[in-house]
Amino acid sequence: MAKKAILSYSGGLDTSVCIPMLKEDYGFDEVITVSVDVGQPEQEVKNAEEKAKLISDKHYTIDAKDEFVSDYIFPLIKANGDYEGYVMGTSIARPLIAKKVVEIAEKEGASAFAHGCTGKGNDQLRFETIFRSTGKDVIAPMRERNLTREWEIEYAKCHNIPVAATKDKPWSVDENLWSRSIEGGRLEDPSFVPPEEIYEWTTSPENAPDKATVIDIGFENGVPVSLDGQKMKGYDLIQKLNQIGGANGVGRSDMVEDRVLGLKARENYEHPAATILLKAHKDLEQLVLTRAELKFKAGVDSQWSELAYQGLVDEPLYADLNAFIDKTQERVTGTVKVKLYKGGLIIVARDSPFALYSEDLVSFDSQTIDQKDAEGFCKYHGFQARLYKQLKK
Amino acid sequence: MAKKAILSYSGGLDTSVCIPMLKEDYGFDEVITVSVDVGQPEQEVKNAEEKAKLISDKHYTIDAKDEFVSDYIFPLIKANGDYEGYVMGTSIARPLIAKKVVEIAEKEGASAFAHGCTGKGNDQLRFETIFRSTGKDVIAPMRERNLTREWEIEYAKCHNIPVAATKDKPWSVDENLWSRSIEGGRLEDPSFVPPEEIYEWTTSPENAPDKATVIDIGFENGVPVSLDGQKMKGYDLIQKLNQIGGANGVGRSDMVEDRVLGLKARENYEHPAATILLKAHKDLEQLVLTRAELKFKAGVDSQWSELAYQGLVDEPLYADLNAFIDKTQERVTGTVKVKLYKGGLIIVARDSPFALYSEDLVSFDSQTIDQKDAEGFCKYHGFQARLYKQLKK
Amino acid sequence: MAKKAILSYSGGLDTSVCIPMLKEDYGFDEVITVSVDVGQPEQEVKNAEEKAKLISDKHYTIDAKDEFVSDYIFPLIKANGDYEGYVMGTSIARPLIAKKVVEIAEKEGASAFAHGCTGKGNDQLRFETIFRSTGKDVIAPMRERNLTREWEIEYAKCHNIPVAATKDKPWSVDENLWSRSIEGGRLEDPSFVPPEEIYEWTTSPENAPDKATVIDIGFENGVPVSLDGQKMKGYDLIQKLNQIGGANGVGRSDMVEDRVLGLKARENYEHPAATILLKAHKDLEQLVLTRAELKFKAGVDSQWSELAYQGLVDEPLYADLNAFIDKTQERVTGTVKVKLYKGGLIIVARDSPFALYSEDLVSFDSQTIDQKDAEGFCKYHGFQARLYKQLKK
Amino acid sequence: MAKKAILSYSGGLDTSVCIPMLKEDYGFDEVITVSVDVGQPEQEVKNAEEKAKLISDKHYTIDAKDEFVSDYIFPLIKANGDYEGYVMGTSIARPLIAKKVVEIAEKEGASAFAHGCTGKGNDQLRFETIFRSTGKDVIAPMRERNLTREWEIEYAKCHNIPVAATKDKPWSVDENLWSRSIEGGRLEDPSFVPPEEIYEWTTSPENAPDKATVIDIGFENGVPVSLDGQKMKGYDLIQKLNQIGGANGVGRSDMVEDRVLGLKARENYEHPAATILLKAHKDLEQLVLTRAELKFKAGVDSQWSELAYQGLVDEPLYADLNAFIDKTQERVTGTVKVKLYKGGLIIVARDSPFALYSEDLVSFDSQTIDQKDAEGFCKYHGFQARLYKQLKK
Repeated sequence: MAKKAILSYSGGLDTSVCIPMLKEDYGFDEVITVSVDVGQPEQEVKNAEEKAKLISDKHYTIDAKDEFVSDYIFPLIKANGDYEGYVMGTSIARPLIAKKVVEIAEKEGASAFAHGCTGKGNDQLRFETIFRSTGKDVIAPMRERNLTREWEIEYAKCHNIPVAATKDKPWSVDENLWSRSIEGGRLEDPSFVPPEEIYEWTTSPENAPDKATVIDIGFENGVPVSLDGQKMKGYDLIQKLNQIGGANGVGRSDMVEDRVLGLKARENYEHPAATILLKAHKDLEQLVLTRAELKFKAGVDSQWSELAYQGLVDEPLYADLNAFIDKTQERVTGTVKVKLYKGGLIIVARDSPFALYSEDLVSFDSQTIDQKDAEGFCKYHGFQARLYKQLKK
Repeated sequence: MAKKAILSYSGGLDTSVCIPMLKEDYGFDEVITVSVDVGQPEQEVKNAEEKAKLISDKHYTIDAKDEFVSDYIFPLIKANGDYEGYVMGTSIARPLIAKKVVEIAEKEGASAFAHGCTGKGNDQLRFETIFRSTGKDVIAPMRERNLTREWEIEYAKCHNIPVAATKDKPWSVDENLWSRSIEGGRLEDPSFVPPEEIYEWTTSPENAPDKATVIDIGFENGVPVSLDGQKMKGYDLIQKLNQIGGANGVGRSDMVEDRVLGLKARENYEHPAATILLKAHKDLEQLVLTRAELKFKAGVDSQWSELAYQGLVDEPLYADLNAFIDKTQERVTGTVKVKLYKGGLIIVARDSPFALYSEDLVSFDSQTIDQKDAEGFCKYHGFQARLYKQLKK
Repeated sequence: MAKKAILSYSGGLDTSVCIPMLKEDYGFDEVITVSVDVGQPEQEVKNAEEKAKLISDKHYTIDAKDEFVSDYIFPLIKANGDYEGYVMGTSIARPLIAKKVVEIAEKEGASAFAHGCTGKGNDQLRFETIFRSTGKDVIAPMRERNLTREWEIEYAKCHNIPVAATKDKPWSVDENLWSRSIEGGRLEDPSFVPPEEIYEWTTSPENAPDKATVIDIGFENGVPVSLDGQKMKGYDLIQKLNQIGGANGVGRSDMVEDRVLGLKARENYEHPAATILLKAHKDLEQLVLTRAELKFKAGVDSQWSELAYQGLVDEPLYADLNAFIDKTQERVTGTVKVKLYKGGLIIVARDSPFALYSEDLVSFDSQTIDQKDAEGFCKYHGFQARLYKQLKK
Repeated sequence: MAKKAILSYSGGLDTSVCIPMLKEDYGFDEVITVSVDVGQPEQEVKNAEEKAKLISDKHYTIDAKDEFVSDYIFPLIKANGDYEGYVMGTSIARPLIAKKVVEIAEKEGASAFAHGCTGKGNDQLRFETIFRSTGKDVIAPMRERNLTREWEIEYAKCHNIPVAATKDKPWSVDENLWSRSIEGGRLEDPSFVPPEEIYEWTTSPENAPDKATVIDIGFENGVPVSLDGQKMKGYDLIQKLNQIGGANGVGRSDMVEDRVLGLKARENYEHPAATILLKAHKDLEQLVLTRAELKFKAGVDSQWSELAYQGLVDEPLYADLNAFIDKTQERVTGTVKVKLYKGGLIIVARDSPFALYSEDLVSFDSQTIDQKDAEGFCKYHGFQARLYKQLKK
């Protein structure tokens, strides 16, 4: 029986070079490639497919765009997902890609998985925690051999792998519907001011229009459903917000990030829709959730984000946290008015049928509470602190 | 012996009206007024002083500006202080004002405290938790009697209290060095878009300069000490940043806030220096603290902020948290480069002698770690989740 | 129309005295009494009923025993409910009693609620937060007038209220199926060693049998369902465990507790079934939940307990937390072997189909992991701490 | 120059076999052995020393008993240290042993560290995170080669290593002043009831005296300083409490524990002094700390324990947490009365000059608070929950 390896394939040099290596160095008879469409540029998906036809034994392109929105982006919005204060993008796509690859591996009866990640980053962890659940082997040629780009180009030529003519880019980019990350090279130095050219989704604030754009975003149960009153499918809404936000210079971030293995690394991101939706969602929560919910949910959101960053969506705790979050989101319905202007974003109004603020509510309670009642409350505010102060005397 | 009341005095109508009321309705022989300068407009402090000379038995103006910076604002910066995602201002000044008032009460041998807060807000709690530590009575005439502005003006006239000619402002304002808050009236409705006129410290982003301003802020042990390389005293530095930030339209916020008693209220704030310093400080922490510290400190900061918001600086936990925070700040030293532009603020570079990132550090560790070691790490990533998945089968 | 008050009625002197007071001093035409059976001694419920027939206008006895188990005790077990390290009892019964009283109030068209709590304890808060949701008035005669026991006895005699002949007990007791609390008098002093006579449910360890009792408790989805292999209804199982545990001297606690208003008070409790079930439940969780779940759930449990202690079961966060907890409990199924001996309790064995430990599981994973892989893991353990140590040099 | 390895040496078969292996298989010229005395049985330390004289090139015995108490056990008591609900013992000794070994390595100019841990447990992680800080190599022969006991005995004989005549024990034991752990063999199965013979420090509850022992433990700043009123050195006090507790059958635990790598394992422990001191310390904290401190410190303690369990005492967060904890302990001074009886332990009284409970304190505050003030507090208790309930209607 043919010994098959399934390779998560992007079309780039690294994963392309893996194909002959898996046969020559690891003894596989067949290498089956899988590309998963999570909203990266269409041309990238097409290129991967065309290249795969030339050099792999069989290729699958899986359209997972809607699943990415409903099962990964929407839960992230409900969880106000961020890691160390910034938007996550690559991390939430990896488990979905891995799951699709596992499905193909089962269908094809493959005996091992392969990926093109190095041994320094997070993606190896996110992929492998899912691949390894099957009990099958995982092969990471880039991690096992310290290949240089020159060697890879030479090797590619020898194996009739088309090599893009473009010169070596100084940074490495990852894109999906939710985010575009730029890292590596001189950017790794946290004190290096990044050049404007690294950004593609967002115009610079200086070049953005001189007039602000004001939009209304509608949410239902914690999830965005409309733009300026018009219902839209999740994928279309996010794409549209990427355009509007990007045109106004909104949605860049520049951070020093702690990778799972422990290294700190400077990262730059673009994510206009994410910036808009996360700020709007949080503002709406502030209107409808109780103070106790807001305070506790901050800790839940933080734990959710850590699991998501690490790709640990199979950890049972991830489902437990989602049960909590979904319960809170039953009331996160309403509209948020957002003003975008030259890189800045400000929420200027918000409204919800579940707002814990209304003239009626206040008057309901003023039947039984009057100002003087606050005196009793004041007397117990900081009560133990007062006892302690007395004790010190 | 004369029965004396000490009144925390702002010079406004409410606290002015309290003076004759404390004598006529509460039976005090003397009313001593105290105004504490925490960086509110100079004219406001002067007006209070002049008015007090006319109507109170004795008046103190206390300059607490430097103490406000060193003992309240600097700890807040180290704690990344914010409440429900926004900057605090009024809340951190109240305990300082209350402490100064207590000092005068002890000096004067007063038998009671008075303040002009109503029974709906937070300030009554912040003042009284400190006043009540003395075991003395606290009188809050505004809370006990539901006075209308018309009645107060009439009463003031009868008692020769000068009433400012300005017409009734539709919102109420509180200012100190760190923040300016605007609340009340139509602003209370979270769906009302606030008019530009409510802002005084910040220009609108649209009217800000067309060219970005880039500044370098130097920190030592978590506290800002220099601007563009030049050492500055805390008070001067914050004042300067309020000007620079305000001119670039930076530092507005618009939020729905949970007051201590439970009501949600829409609040608007201006705080250019705070926005700049808090973002820069957090970015620097991200460079020098370990991931474990960053994660745990987020919870410490949140608890610190809750105590500070409630005015509970005498709660022993407040000192405990500061001990933790101060320990972490020993390394929060370095420089952060900030770009301000039309309402937006972005950190573009950061540097520190304590950065947990450097070529040297990375090469130190690459002596003993190589890429292949990550494979072992990967095999244990999400280990229990994999066991669980296997179990489900 | 008759003006009716609904009184939460225990049959004791305090609540009996309230009946004529509500008419004479508060102007009600009718006082309707309600006693809710949550597993207090049967005689207590009967006495209340008989006494009410003599002195109230109408009386309801509501059997809420099964609802108490399913809706209050079972959620507490799943949440490992304890407050500051001890079992809760009274606190989880109060909301149920209040809800039943509200139902009667709606049925009867009453215009106000009354209760017999003082202004020092927690029960006033637990009752009123539910009573006040209706928008109706709440009357607390004991809190409003500082009545002495002597005055109450005299008043009772004048109003033909039967007064029990028993002499004034030096402590106050509250009992339901889950717990018996004893407080007050000299017990309030934390340095007073409590006399043996305060305990009724538990024998002293010294008088317990010389031979240990070993029992097996079966759980399904976090809830106890069987004893020594025999399926039992919740109420019966808890009652049986109270007997077995009590006979072995198990289930006493002696603590200093922070009441909601801020006072610390010494409390003594008896709760044999609770001690057994909570320890067994936690042990089973330790076997089936992942480390990440155990760690995070500890914080969820603690927040749940704080809400429960304060009687805040209508706070939306309470339902959110239960959603998280219920999700985790899907796997908390199995058997725990408990040894009871002279006041001590030790878990000696546990078993579950969902255990994250088994020969099979370990061998499943040993296919892909070998001992050497741990070296890679070791190299990243404490990685940033090592970088930091290097930096200090 | 001679190539030297430093071996952390216990005197057992595993570490003895390492000595010739390090020379023959790893090419070292000299193997220097180090045994650190942290309160394990005296005979064990002596045996190691004598055996080392025969087979190692140089041997050091380091007395670290007092340092173990002051720098590891006392901080643990202040932090109420436990992992997943149980006492830690081995984990807090490992970093101290590692530090002593590092000191010798520096003195001797050794080029590598060696230890005898396998690749399955926690100790490899605790040792190596400290060894690796030096940048030197770490060698773990047991982890690298899967040696059987038979092979090791044969190898020992060939290399003139004395092998103890005792037959293979079915479980593995680790002892220091604070705790004795027993693990391995059939004990690994969580459903196996452990036989009485595994315990050495504690008598069985059944064999304990028929009369209870009552003791008074004095604390100063969170640390135990006296027994029954008599001042004692830390080491002596702990040893004495191990005797008293052990004689009363107090201080056993039986648990399923999550190891760092992710495997769950059943562990049995004995730790009489630890059980007594931790319960007494927590009870005293309950008397003197504010509710806010107690609640927040629970989270600090839990994080402290996780770091300690993992041996991460060099993580900067560990020092940050200790700064918080030490601040809280300034008031944890007083006496706790403990009753020990047949395996059970109960606190029956406690007293402190810093108690937040006293007749005086209560009367201080009753000057300004009366029962009626609680009504105002009640009206705000659960305020938002009431608004929400109203909204649902």
